Amino acid sequence: MKTVNIGILGLGTVGGGTYEILDMNRELIEKRIGREIKVAKVLEKNTERLKALGLPEERATQDPDDILKSPDIDIVVEALGGIEPSTTFMLTAMENGKSVVTPNKAAVAANFAKLKKTAEENNVEFRFEASVGGGIPALTAITEALAGNEFTEVMGILNGTTNYILTRMTDLGLDYDEVLKDAQAKGFAEADPTADVEGIDVANKLSILMALAFDTYVPPEEIPTTGISKITMDDIHAAKEKGCRIKLIAQAKRDGDHLNYSVKPMEIPDSHPLAGVSNEFNAIYVTGNAVDEVMFYGKGAGALPTGSAIVGDILAIAKNL
Amino acid sequence: MKTVNIGILGLGTVGGGTYEILDMNRELIEKRIGREIKVAKVLEKNTERLKALGLPEERATQDPDDILKSPDIDIVVEALGGIEPSTTFMLTAMENGKSVVTPNKAAVAANFAKLKKTAEENNVEFRFEASVGGGIPALTAITEALAGNEFTEVMGILNGTTNYILTRMTDLGLDYDEVLKDAQAKGFAEADPTADVEGIDVANKLSILMALAFDTYVPPEEIPTTGISKITMDDIHAAKEKGCRIKLIAQAKRDGDHLNYSVKPMEIPDSHPLAGVSNEFNAIYVTGNAVDEVMFYGKGAGALPTGSAIVGDILAIAKNL
Repeated sequence: MKTVNIGILGLGTVGGGTYEILDMNRELIEKRIGREIKVAKVLEKNTERLKALGLPEERATQDPDDILKSPDIDIVVEALGGIEPSTTFMLTAMENGKSVVTPNKAAVAANFAKLKKTAEENNVEFRFEASVGGGIPALTAITEALAGNEFTEVMGILNGTTNYILTRMTDLGLDYDEVLKDAQAKGFAEADPTADVEGIDVANKLSILMALAFDTYVPPEEIPTTGISKITMDDIHAAKEKGCRIKLIAQAKRDGDHLNYSVKPMEIPDSHPLAGVSNEFNAIYVTGNAVDEVMFYGKGAGALPTGSAIVGDILAIAKNL
Repeated sequence: MKTVNIGILGLGTVGGGTYEILDMNRELIEKRIGREIKVAKVLEKNTERLKALGLPEERATQDPDDILKSPDIDIVVEALGGIEPSTTFMLTAMENGKSVVTPNKAAVAANFAKLKKTAEENNVEFRFEASVGGGIPALTAITEALAGNEFTEVMGILNGTTNYILTRMTDLGLDYDEVLKDAQAKGFAEADPTADVEGIDVANKLSILMALAFDTYVPPEEIPTTGISKITMDDIHAAKEKGCRIKLIAQAKRDGDHLNYSVKPMEIPDSHPLAGVSNEFNAIYVTGNAVDEVMFYGKGAGALPTGSAIVGDILAIAKNL
């Protein structure tokens, strides 16, 4: 059986989750694709982390070039996060003939065209299913199974932290500040929650969705973005009286040749499929001129759900190697 | 640009919808995959149907071999329905080097192993995304983007007619017989509704889902199947009192090495994502050991939604030709 060698940059939550899945589902994966997937090298200095995952210490390196430029590595998983040095690492890997898989929405949204072009020029694959909606296979669906559609609208609940906060405010009648503190205590929100609650994380994801669904790249900073930090219980009650729930919605809608887009809190009618997407769950709701309405629902974050999307991308590439 | 030639067997609702999508989204499709997709031949004797779709009469034939054995055809879309002669036609097409796409759940469920094996032996592709959940790209997701998962459970609302009937009974308090008559008058239910209301259609779809998700083929007639024709308003009310809705659920669940499966009306708690799937909509809810819960929602029938899935399969094959 052919062995496909993977290099993982960063063994944090998502990099570690990817390794865990490849390890726990090894036999099943080999049977399904007829290839052995081996994590040959990881960029990680925390040896405790290696031990916890059961990875032999000799597979770790602190020099990115041991992965990016190694002739033995077929696919690089970039799981460091942040725009740089992640983008440079991904470009270097592609220039060295490696396909790249990443969950890094900030880097993909910031450098979409350059990353796509470099992949094409080097005849390698660049896949980023995990960058939008975590484990939900929406990007692959949009670009592959739904490729016969002209898309007219994309809507999404794309951030678990804000959806959790809004769900708790709506269901328990608690104030924003109170729910945020509770979410931070439980690890559902970060100590500095700005990127989540102000919609910055969601704008990155909408930028990626628009590039795929509408072939239109809009830098995330040019997407009109309003977060949820100013939502009050009065807003929640006013929505409820109209039979609606407030959700932080990423939306892009075609209007003739024009594309309208925004990230903002919206009142979603209870009868709409997005209204039932609660707590930390995410969903992507797409309208196409053939399929009509379709929705994808699942966990938008977490080691194993996000790792599931990364492994799906790895297998799609490995099958053709 | 390379031209990929399609032969369509049957220009009914789904065959016609497939042609419509290929026609209306022609430019977009050519741009996306870099191939021209041409409907070169159709098996259809109804010339009115050809005219309505704007297909030149010389592209029609009444001899299946003009498609199945023609050296000019690359991909055959089988859209006749029924187990035979559809299965024989699909096998003949594969034996003649053609890839096959079909929405025909009865034929796929009845002859799954033979169709898969014949495709492998002849080194052609056999795709049937449209056979389960119409336009919803669940089968592709299960076999590709989620291929890193060991699946533990698959549940689905897989029949629009029965879901419409149960939704009307629940929301409007109308009796089964009354709703069925109304659905027949509106064309949502067939004159002989047996295959839908007794769960036979759903059993075919569950057989296909189990073959893909669990690599376990169970003939549809061996799946314990109960339909909705005996559901009364008393049942609906009893469910409501428990905070549930009655849905016709196809379910397969792993229990150690054992697989439990059934098609039957079940009480689904209002908080479950499947409870919100109303009217003619379908959904497939999958649990995997990496992704956790994921749900796919959309239109399970209709010319364009089902055609969307067929065109997705055509493009997946055409890209690699």
